[in-house]
Amino acid sequence: MALLVQKYGGTSVGSIERIQHVASKIMLAKSQGHDVVVVVSAMSGETDRLIRLAEALSTEPTPREYDMLVSTGEQVTMSLLAIALANHNCRARSYTGPQAGIITDNVHTKARIIEVKTETIRRDLAEGYVVVVAGFQGVNSQGDVTTLGRGGSDTTAVALAAALKADECQIYTDVDGVYTTDPRMIPEAQLLPQISFEEMLEMSSLGAKVLQMRSVELANKHNTPLRVLSTFNDGTGTLVTFEDKVMQRRLVSGIAFSREEAIISMTGVPNRAGIEGHILGLVSDAHIEIDMIAQNATDKDHTDFTFTVQRQDAPKTLKLIEAIASDLGAVAVKSNDKVAKLSLVGIGMRSHTGVASTMFKALGRVNINIQMITTSEIKISVIINEDCLEKGVRAVHEAFELHKSAAERHLAFMET
Amino acid sequence: MALLVQKYGGTSVGSIERIQHVASKIMLAKSQGHDVVVVVSAMSGETDRLIRLAEALSTEPTPREYDMLVSTGEQVTMSLLAIALANHNCRARSYTGPQAGIITDNVHTKARIIEVKTETIRRDLAEGYVVVVAGFQGVNSQGDVTTLGRGGSDTTAVALAAALKADECQIYTDVDGVYTTDPRMIPEAQLLPQISFEEMLEMSSLGAKVLQMRSVELANKHNTPLRVLSTFNDGTGTLVTFEDKVMQRRLVSGIAFSREEAIISMTGVPNRAGIEGHILGLVSDAHIEIDMIAQNATDKDHTDFTFTVQRQDAPKTLKLIEAIASDLGAVAVKSNDKVAKLSLVGIGMRSHTGVASTMFKALGRVNINIQMITTSEIKISVIINEDCLEKGVRAVHEAFELHKSAAERHLAFMET
Repeated sequence: MALLVQKYGGTSVGSIERIQHVASKIMLAKSQGHDVVVVVSAMSGETDRLIRLAEALSTEPTPREYDMLVSTGEQVTMSLLAIALANHNCRARSYTGPQAGIITDNVHTKARIIEVKTETIRRDLAEGYVVVVAGFQGVNSQGDVTTLGRGGSDTTAVALAAALKADECQIYTDVDGVYTTDPRMIPEAQLLPQISFEEMLEMSSLGAKVLQMRSVELANKHNTPLRVLSTFNDGTGTLVTFEDKVMQRRLVSGIAFSREEAIISMTGVPNRAGIEGHILGLVSDAHIEIDMIAQNATDKDHTDFTFTVQRQDAPKTLKLIEAIASDLGAVAVKSNDKVAKLSLVGIGMRSHTGVASTMFKALGRVNINIQMITTSEIKISVIINEDCLEKGVRAVHEAFELHKSAAERHLAFMET
Repeated sequence: MALLVQKYGGTSVGSIERIQHVASKIMLAKSQGHDVVVVVSAMSGETDRLIRLAEALSTEPTPREYDMLVSTGEQVTMSLLAIALANHNCRARSYTGPQAGIITDNVHTKARIIEVKTETIRRDLAEGYVVVVAGFQGVNSQGDVTTLGRGGSDTTAVALAAALKADECQIYTDVDGVYTTDPRMIPEAQLLPQISFEEMLEMSSLGAKVLQMRSVELANKHNTPLRVLSTFNDGTGTLVTFEDKVMQRRLVSGIAFSREEAIISMTGVPNRAGIEGHILGLVSDAHIEIDMIAQNATDKDHTDFTFTVQRQDAPKTLKLIEAIASDLGAVAVKSNDKVAKLSLVGIGMRSHTGVASTMFKALGRVNINIQMITTSEIKISVIINEDCLEKGVRAVHEAFELHKSAAERHLAFMET
């Protein structure tokens, strides 16, 4: 008998029939002897509907009121789910974020959870209730409702799982789990039975949008096992957990990618201390998020400075950079907004050399020109032409034999 | 400078445009120097939409969850209204029933307010805020959201006005105020500038559905002046207030009526003590509400016993009565479900004789047969054939010169 926190997203509770289906999954877990706490999102489309109402009244809705407004979406779902459970004689009680004791800071629309008071939930669990909690919301010290930002229901689930010391936090969604790469692009992609927190962070920040990054960070911090699995298909999904020997033996876990990238370079910049900070400060002051950064000293006095931004931010960024280029003495400013990012992720690459060269060779074999490279301990990212993305992902996927099942690959590593 | 509690119903806040309009009315009051607390209902149709969702999941939704669900309707409106006000630089803060300190008993779906904690609202008013409160809801001692039943937003408004000792509780609605009778039937009906609490209670319980009865009772109990007025048209509406000399001089205030009535009689019942209690107990045990009751002893040993119920309850009631008729020794059971009730209301009739005879003569002149009569201190009700209702209302309206403006009528009384 375990304590499970299950989270169901907007698509999973998007209709009366789907709420019934979710109720049946909860009752199954309950019938297996588990204690269950459920976190729900708003029914799909509902949050957007509420936002449209607010925006019809004001271009800048008061954040306090905006939070109160959008938090009603999850309240509707939680009540409906509790009603559906009770209708099948499964005793259930629903709670808003404030009622559930989710205490946040005062930053409306992007609040952070600072404490979870679990007395009420523990009492209900002890009495045999399924506890349903509205995701995405909490209460600040003034008693005002706050929201946690998009995807905040994942964070609610992990925070509750951590505070309750749950055995597992299960994120039910519309995908079967985490794949070696996006199976819509590469049908041979394999479901990963396990992945480490660090790999998952790299995968989700790189566009494999299965889990909200903050929730993975939080699960990592509190050592809460996190499982991603499908609401609609059976299967055990992907367990995001602590690094273990099996994972370490695995060279790489998967390939993440994102389109919508733009690359901007300044060449021949005189190499003075603090110049990078100056350039990037200017961009981030304009609320533009910088992703990859690379710098190569071309000679001892000059450097080439390259970074990427979201494609939509490229024109504005370019204007900012061009305005300071001559002051900084740069030779040229170049940009390309038809590029994509391809990232290879795996904790195994820490202890294995040759991963980067295998990757670059695979790309070279299919004539893909690499425009930029950054690396971290468990990740290698390259910028390539967007047109080549699919070809590149396929080549790297095959080079690391990711189309083979995890069991086959482990076997292969054992043998070598 | 006064403290006003304004309540806007579902139709008044039924669209973005209407919410904007309500915001402009609030800002007008504010610009006149008044402090304003606003109570809002759910946007029209929203509560029904939520109820349909619940009923799609269960024929008997858990009351606690049902209350949580439907209470979100008012939360949406209150946030939107506060956003609309802020957009015009009118500082506003919205509160749910629980946040506003509306404490109720534990009877879900029909809770009663037992206390209003006004600290938060008073603080905001002192700081110059417009305070917007979700109507229809409160919180019980366990911290669960409760709702006050249909029309509960009126009750919220009056309870807040009483607790804050407001100068006036203004109920904005889609009618201009209280008329001498329904102007959709009698176009000559006159708007009443004032009416006493007692008259209003008789008017609203008799089918003039302008105000919820409980809210009038509450206003009466706390001596809170209550004004009914239109959201959409200008005008001062009708003030429901303490009886004064002007009102006492007025013979009658208006005519209320209701269709959907049914009359049931037992004739020749042996007249034994406790027999009425036995008959009515049987009916109310079946959760059927009895309205009018009349009894005439036909001779010293026998009596005729007549009462009315809602038309929809007539078949069930008749079955119950027929089952016991022979045991009680009744001669016959008769029923008629094609009847209507017409009631003349006025505190002036207390001190004036001849009101009943004027009314009966008026009905007689247009050949209307009266099937049942009951009277109270300030009301005379008759049951007549439904077909004759409009003719009857018109005849009585004319007999009491209700088509003349209030000023004209007062003048007439002065002269006699």
